[in-house]
Amino acid sequence: MASSKQFEPASGTRDFLAAEYEKREHAFATIRGVFARYGLQPLQTPAFERLDVLAGKYGDEGDKLIFKILRRGEHEASGEADLALRYDLTVPLARAVAAYGSQLPTPYKRYTIAPVWRADRPGKGRFREFVQCDLDIVGSSSPLCDAEIVLALHDALDSLGVPEFRFLLNSRQVLFGLLEAYDVPAELGSGVLITLDKLDKLSPEAVVAELVAGRGLAADVAQGLVDDLTAPDAAERIREGLKASETGQTGLAEVDRLLALTKDTIPAARIAFTPNLVRGLDYYTGIIFEVVAPGVPGSIASGGRYDGLIGRLGGKDSPACGGSLGIERILPLLDQGAEADYAQIDVAVTVMDEDLAAESFRLADRVRQAGIRTGVYLGSSRKFASQMKWASGQGARFCLIYGAAEHADGAVTVRDMVSGEQTRVAFDEAAADIARRFAPAG
Amino acid sequence: MASSKQFEPASGTRDFLAAEYEKREHAFATIRGVFARYGLQPLQTPAFERLDVLAGKYGDEGDKLIFKILRRGEHEASGEADLALRYDLTVPLARAVAAYGSQLPTPYKRYTIAPVWRADRPGKGRFREFVQCDLDIVGSSSPLCDAEIVLALHDALDSLGVPEFRFLLNSRQVLFGLLEAYDVPAELGSGVLITLDKLDKLSPEAVVAELVAGRGLAADVAQGLVDDLTAPDAAERIREGLKASETGQTGLAEVDRLLALTKDTIPAARIAFTPNLVRGLDYYTGIIFEVVAPGVPGSIASGGRYDGLIGRLGGKDSPACGGSLGIERILPLLDQGAEADYAQIDVAVTVMDEDLAAESFRLADRVRQAGIRTGVYLGSSRKFASQMKWASGQGARFCLIYGAAEHADGAVTVRDMVSGEQTRVAFDEAAADIARRFAPAG
Repeated sequence: MASSKQFEPASGTRDFLAAEYEKREHAFATIRGVFARYGLQPLQTPAFERLDVLAGKYGDEGDKLIFKILRRGEHEASGEADLALRYDLTVPLARAVAAYGSQLPTPYKRYTIAPVWRADRPGKGRFREFVQCDLDIVGSSSPLCDAEIVLALHDALDSLGVPEFRFLLNSRQVLFGLLEAYDVPAELGSGVLITLDKLDKLSPEAVVAELVAGRGLAADVAQGLVDDLTAPDAAERIREGLKASETGQTGLAEVDRLLALTKDTIPAARIAFTPNLVRGLDYYTGIIFEVVAPGVPGSIASGGRYDGLIGRLGGKDSPACGGSLGIERILPLLDQGAEADYAQIDVAVTVMDEDLAAESFRLADRVRQAGIRTGVYLGSSRKFASQMKWASGQGARFCLIYGAAEHADGAVTVRDMVSGEQTRVAFDEAAADIARRFAPAG
Repeated sequence: MASSKQFEPASGTRDFLAAEYEKREHAFATIRGVFARYGLQPLQTPAFERLDVLAGKYGDEGDKLIFKILRRGEHEASGEADLALRYDLTVPLARAVAAYGSQLPTPYKRYTIAPVWRADRPGKGRFREFVQCDLDIVGSSSPLCDAEIVLALHDALDSLGVPEFRFLLNSRQVLFGLLEAYDVPAELGSGVLITLDKLDKLSPEAVVAELVAGRGLAADVAQGLVDDLTAPDAAERIREGLKASETGQTGLAEVDRLLALTKDTIPAARIAFTPNLVRGLDYYTGIIFEVVAPGVPGSIASGGRYDGLIGRLGGKDSPACGGSLGIERILPLLDQGAEADYAQIDVAVTVMDEDLAAESFRLADRVRQAGIRTGVYLGSSRKFASQMKWASGQGARFCLIYGAAEHADGAVTVRDMVSGEQTRVAFDEAAADIARRFAPAG
């Protein structure tokens, strides 16, 4: 016989029943609403792309995690793939910009909230099908665009009700300047940055050790760099240190410009220059940022400017910046309370007599026309108690009872499912009566 | 160099830019709203299933159209598949019913609006990724459930504004009774039904010819059956003929019961007993229906009762009925007008001076808080004419102009982009002023 495992969704994927589905959709709708108010345009691309569009875009490690689709028909036996499931939303964006560039406004401001698929080892909070939520502005190098990305993300997190989040802000130019100002040999630069990125996870001592042993950096340089980056007054020390580097000055100016552009809209406590923020991905070219929240490991949003990427991914070479909400990490933060009582319907309608069922359907239809979720009893019992049990089980606030007695009088009994109180109203008045009961007071 | 084909989505799939996306989402939201008002619950399952869940469920022809996903890592070289993209929404429903049966209400009323993938040859209106829109009630054999499916579909089509649609209604029992009453040998039955299903595409003569030559039916039986089914008074003739069959009488009672249950809600002209409706799929066991609309080949919705299917698909054996909206066929019917002018934003905010940009962002933020889509000029030009050109191009109804003169006065200039009329308001009043201009009159 069937084991229960047989009916589970495939490893790393999830089914969403009504309550969970509604909670997720509510969050997505909130984000869509915010992004639309910024004039960001939705873009939807297919679940799969031709394999050559995706292959080679995510590095060796990423490539291994792509779900590839077998060729079909006579070609199936070849064991070859020609299509692959979307791995992120950025490569499809680059393809769309290349395909529709002339039809798109400049700059092109778009958002996409959609699932992506990665053959990662499934684990706690790590899925093979998960939703990404990206916004990007392609075709402009204006710092106003970086500011708008940060503002839109701030607005979205605020609207979702995420508590106590903070933007950590830096620039890749600050990091390059840092390497210069602290006399890190150019050839060690990118390795040093990868190690410095671990300052939020490892102790300063461990990072110094890795810089020296793993990256070949001189011990005094490593110690000086880590000391300054982890000091309580790190931002001031780094500002001072960067005076020695022109690149560093350019980067600081980017950071300060973004702080100035957002100062009237984002509270100062929610955004700060954070010189030890590196961001692992080497495609960033200017501003970079992450958003952190207490009790959440890693970031709940991130992004930056990536001027060369769209061209590298196949699109026309265009300046671009963007950000992403880690929505699967954010959803658990919003858990409290919302889910507890998922009511399936607001109003229940009985069927006390087979021959009156058509009129019960008509009654339900009228209540639905007032926008109220209404269920007709579909079971076979004609007992009052069974139907009341069903109505409470469904979470109905009111029940419309329509039996032989009501039919004879052209009436309906309205039962308050909380108080048990029953009132009779005329059949033709029942929908309006119910609508009034649900109307906001005042 | 890149050919333009290189940037197209994979064969048979589509990208949706903003205007098209919004039109589709608007229709989906309408349908979701209707289904929710019936107390139907959303169910979301993953894009892919284990291959063994899907294989063998769609017949030989269907199996060939399944997109299979190659195994990964060391197993990739085997050329074998272990996962496959969802081919329809019914098999995942059966799996979910098996997995979560005890957590689900009885009957379980669910809807799903989601893409499915089929490796069909792409053609006009035929895609490899397309959205299905299903509703089903699992766990009850009550005729009230069949009626509710029909009512919910009727309501959805009505709410979408589909013009002049009609339900064609029949029962598989009527068809089995027909075979009995017209003395069709039992062993020819299912072949005869498959041929009779072509009466809406082929001439009566062609159908008779196929019944005789292809199905081995006696010529007089074939002629009598087709004559009665295509007569102007077919419904009456068949009702008369079915008096000879108990099964036929049961089927007629199912049809009449559904007509009676929906008579108070669905106008009589929109639903009719249609004895030559067969529905190709042999898993239907009771009521069957299709919805047709003038000018649309085939049906725009369909469904019926399929009591054995959930068990056959892997779930617990349960009575069930359901329906499906052919949403990809319906969307073009709703085309007229809606798409013409897709405005990207409602309000534009200028940036006349770099140093005033932070305040332009603050202004935009306040207007957005009133729920109005607002864009800040992100380009590099500081010329008034360029920014006005941008504002009209974006479809903005009003533009907020904030330059040095306005800054000095603590004011903002509001420009009506249609009339060109300009008014000055205090900076702190601008958002409220704009909100008033968008508020419904009266």
